[in-house]
Amino acid sequence: MTAKSTAPESAIAYAPATVANVAAGFDIMGFAVRAPGDEVTARLAGPPGVRIASIDGDGGALPREAQKNTAGVAALGLLSHVGSPAGVEIELRKRMPLGSGLGSSAASAAAAAVAVNELLGRPLNREALLPFCMEAERTACGAAHADNAAPALLGGFVLIRSCHPLDIVRIPVPEELACAVVHPHIEIRTEDARMILRNKITMKEAITQWGNTAGLIAGLTTGDYDLIGRSLNDVVIEPVRAILIPGFHRVKEAAAGAGALGCSISGSGPSIFALARGVESARKAGGAMSDVYREMGVECDLYVSEINRDGTVLE
Amino acid sequence: MTAKSTAPESAIAYAPATVANVAAGFDIMGFAVRAPGDEVTARLAGPPGVRIASIDGDGGALPREAQKNTAGVAALGLLSHVGSPAGVEIELRKRMPLGSGLGSSAASAAAAAVAVNELLGRPLNREALLPFCMEAERTACGAAHADNAAPALLGGFVLIRSCHPLDIVRIPVPEELACAVVHPHIEIRTEDARMILRNKITMKEAITQWGNTAGLIAGLTTGDYDLIGRSLNDVVIEPVRAILIPGFHRVKEAAAGAGALGCSISGSGPSIFALARGVESARKAGGAMSDVYREMGVECDLYVSEINRDGTVLE
Repeated sequence: MTAKSTAPESAIAYAPATVANVAAGFDIMGFAVRAPGDEVTARLAGPPGVRIASIDGDGGALPREAQKNTAGVAALGLLSHVGSPAGVEIELRKRMPLGSGLGSSAASAAAAAVAVNELLGRPLNREALLPFCMEAERTACGAAHADNAAPALLGGFVLIRSCHPLDIVRIPVPEELACAVVHPHIEIRTEDARMILRNKITMKEAITQWGNTAGLIAGLTTGDYDLIGRSLNDVVIEPVRAILIPGFHRVKEAAAGAGALGCSISGSGPSIFALARGVESARKAGGAMSDVYREMGVECDLYVSEINRDGTVLE
Repeated sequence: MTAKSTAPESAIAYAPATVANVAAGFDIMGFAVRAPGDEVTARLAGPPGVRIASIDGDGGALPREAQKNTAGVAALGLLSHVGSPAGVEIELRKRMPLGSGLGSSAASAAAAAVAVNELLGRPLNREALLPFCMEAERTACGAAHADNAAPALLGGFVLIRSCHPLDIVRIPVPEELACAVVHPHIEIRTEDARMILRNKITMKEAITQWGNTAGLIAGLTTGDYDLIGRSLNDVVIEPVRAILIPGFHRVKEAAAGAGALGCSISGSGPSIFALARGVESARKAGGAMSDVYREMGVECDLYVSEINRDGTVLE
């Protein structure tokens, strides 16, 4: 055992779902919600390396080999980085739907990274775990994105100003900001959601978009809820991806009608998020949004919470 | 005379030069500096309407007809909006170079709007004057941009989140933020500087750009000077417009070498600005920047100041 004597024999971590993009912030922004989320137990056991002992809640869909599973990849990356010969067993409890646009792969990676880091006596600080989670994202979706992994790990509202070099900025969030997420039981493959995007956009669209990106950050940092609402406006990605989500425009109207600040697609969808001032307002918006799917005969889950400032937590 | 009895017979206003775009904020951001700037005297005289009584400092380049001159257009728009039958004479003292990328046309318009508003007994507040200045910009450069007019009028650092509908956001500026502007005596036509731009950009460039836009706003609002510096990075406009500005890359390197946070083209150029922490640091950067032009045998002016939070002022 190389873990320091203060390190536990096992550690359990919970990582939350995250909303990436946040309307105008395609590929550069994300925030964490309270639930759903993934739970990982990491245990010192067996020969050097990482084994996935069990996965629960994925309906058998996720790979059991550590190097193909995001929890395993994050754990392996961390062990390798600190040069630990420890043997680690991972139990993964998926408590969130796969392919929902809620950062499922990032949540598994973040929970594993935090649990294993604890197991090793916490050799790295929280931010230093991000590269291993991003590497895990590459396994899951082909690119080392941080827009789910960073908020899942760190909590709150995170700006990824740059990926190369990595520049992560934690954005202050106004006290009452809350979120409703509706997950309709519709399948969209992340690859399809990326493939449908254009390679070029007009300068006019780009200017509109970065005006809204700037407005969103200004609204968040100065606590201007109206400005946040006016800035939740995506002219580049949403118009294209909305095609893949039946009922999207009705859901968006329902959110606005119920007083949400704004509403857009969570990540690559099909989940749809709304931001609101206060949890009660978010609950009302979420109710109106899920009513649309109920009327359409589409099953859906609803999650309402304040912005989750904690990120991944040890249990 | 329709002006209220409290209104003066004449009013003098000074409007400062402005730096538009600010690296990654093409068409959506601008800030005001202390000098150079334009001064307008407005006087109640003659029949209804606006006359340009004199222009000083333009070398005869600007139109003397009110409806073709940005000061005149702003004044006419304001008179028409408030339904005033007043007769107004304007004296315009250009104290800044034309076609320098420092918002010369916007400064004339802002000074005229504020002076005439005063003359009429101040029927409108400061922000309500912006549409007349934007209309004046349309006369000067074909589009009703606000990225010079808004900071010239209001001062500080301004985000134009949207032009249609107009949404102007004043961004908090950290106490010590300062600016150096170098104006090399090179002529660039605003039309050429716009024509050289592409109509489309890649999604990758757009993502990098709005990451930097967001980073700049986050840095300004939270007082993170390093983040401001890292975010002063324009991958869309600067690489193209720099072609029109001899020595640009050397000047940019000189600014960085002298400790500036960042450096880019002011508006459509040829002026080049650098932001720095503290006026002393800005002075050092500005010195290094203008040395490059001196070595090249190109005459240049240097202006150093804190960010001008006042905008247009009555004198």
